[in-house]
Amino acid sequence: MRRKEFSVQEQSEIEAFLQEMSFGYLATLGEDGWPHLTPLNYAYCNGHIYFHGSRAGQKMREIAEARRVSFAVAKEYAIIPSYFSDPRQACPATAFFKSVHIRGEAEPVENLHEKAEALSALMAKLQPEGGYAPITPEDPTYRPELKAVSVVRITVQDLTAKFKFGQNMKEERHDNVVSGLLERSLPDDAETAELMKKYCPFHKEE
Amino acid sequence: MRRKEFSVQEQSEIEAFLQEMSFGYLATLGEDGWPHLTPLNYAYCNGHIYFHGSRAGQKMREIAEARRVSFAVAKEYAIIPSYFSDPRQACPATAFFKSVHIRGEAEPVENLHEKAEALSALMAKLQPEGGYAPITPEDPTYRPELKAVSVVRITVQDLTAKFKFGQNMKEERHDNVVSGLLERSLPDDAETAELMKKYCPFHKEE
Repeated sequence: MRRKEFSVQEQSEIEAFLQEMSFGYLATLGEDGWPHLTPLNYAYCNGHIYFHGSRAGQKMREIAEARRVSFAVAKEYAIIPSYFSDPRQACPATAFFKSVHIRGEAEPVENLHEKAEALSALMAKLQPEGGYAPITPEDPTYRPELKAVSVVRITVQDLTAKFKFGQNMKEERHDNVVSGLLERSLPDDAETAELMKKYCPFHKEE
Repeated sequence: MRRKEFSVQEQSEIEAFLQEMSFGYLATLGEDGWPHLTPLNYAYCNGHIYFHGSRAGQKMREIAEARRVSFAVAKEYAIIPSYFSDPRQACPATAFFKSVHIRGEAEPVENLHEKAEALSALMAKLQPEGGYAPITPEDPTYRPELKAVSVVRITVQDLTAKFKFGQNMKEERHDNVVSGLLERSLPDDAETAELMKKYCPFHKEE
């Protein structure tokens, strides 16, 4: 499943995945000509990716000035050992994962209301149990912090998703892998088997 | 802890982390002028990063031809909620993590013995329980696969590591966060509290 056009259901699965994951990787072009990588907590809010830095320092300026950025979020659900489908050869070993890849333009957010909204979305995701005063520019204890913090918005130009759960496997191997996962029972294995069935062309739900 | 020179102990912790993690993110410069990101299973073997692609296709050639690449591996240990140290303000919310950042030159591996060694290291990490025949160029059932598979080596030019576990916190806040983690008891919390103590300037072990 790697396409640029998504059905409503796929779109909602992608958004749920972006809401569920706590951090992603930002790739920028450095002034030195090398690609730079930065792991970052982020919020997905109003169709944009937002992240922040604790100080308006060099790093955040570099990120904001790079403008053309890529951002990716991936979760590995299961390592699939070769022996699930082949008793001898190592080659069938693989991994199942979800990943979302975004290209966009990064730019610093100056508007305090947009900053507050982005940081509120970040807190809602990372600290859903609450335990803090709502972040607003009107709150005099937040206002100086809101002015000082750097918030960067990535305006999404292109979003692709790859959910790899054995969609291309032949039916016998597919069934062997599902059985292997259910027998192994690592923490994510039952969910992975469910996702294999969900996305498998042989097991389309009516 | 972000430096280019490491003590022997730090070096061994970094290598243990690279051995423990199953996948990282590769950043390359695309021909279109955008940075590209690819999550990849990898092996850390003889001081190099290796990864492979199932086919000698366009993607692997692009990666190999990009040459100047960045590779990063990160693990988030804990989201630290703001209320561990502040009953009102959201600002102290943070995350503790280990990350390793590598810059290097990527190039395709042609030597079958080096390919076999890299793939063996990958299997040893991802499938430590075994269950497959050893991968060697002499094995006639592996030889055609070894020739067909693309293996890329990143020769490390620069490696930095950041292990963020509250090293800069004042002592009272540090102690509050340790207490909060031990009380919360999410799966990684006890280990995170141990790492906070290990890296904390106030708790240097004798």
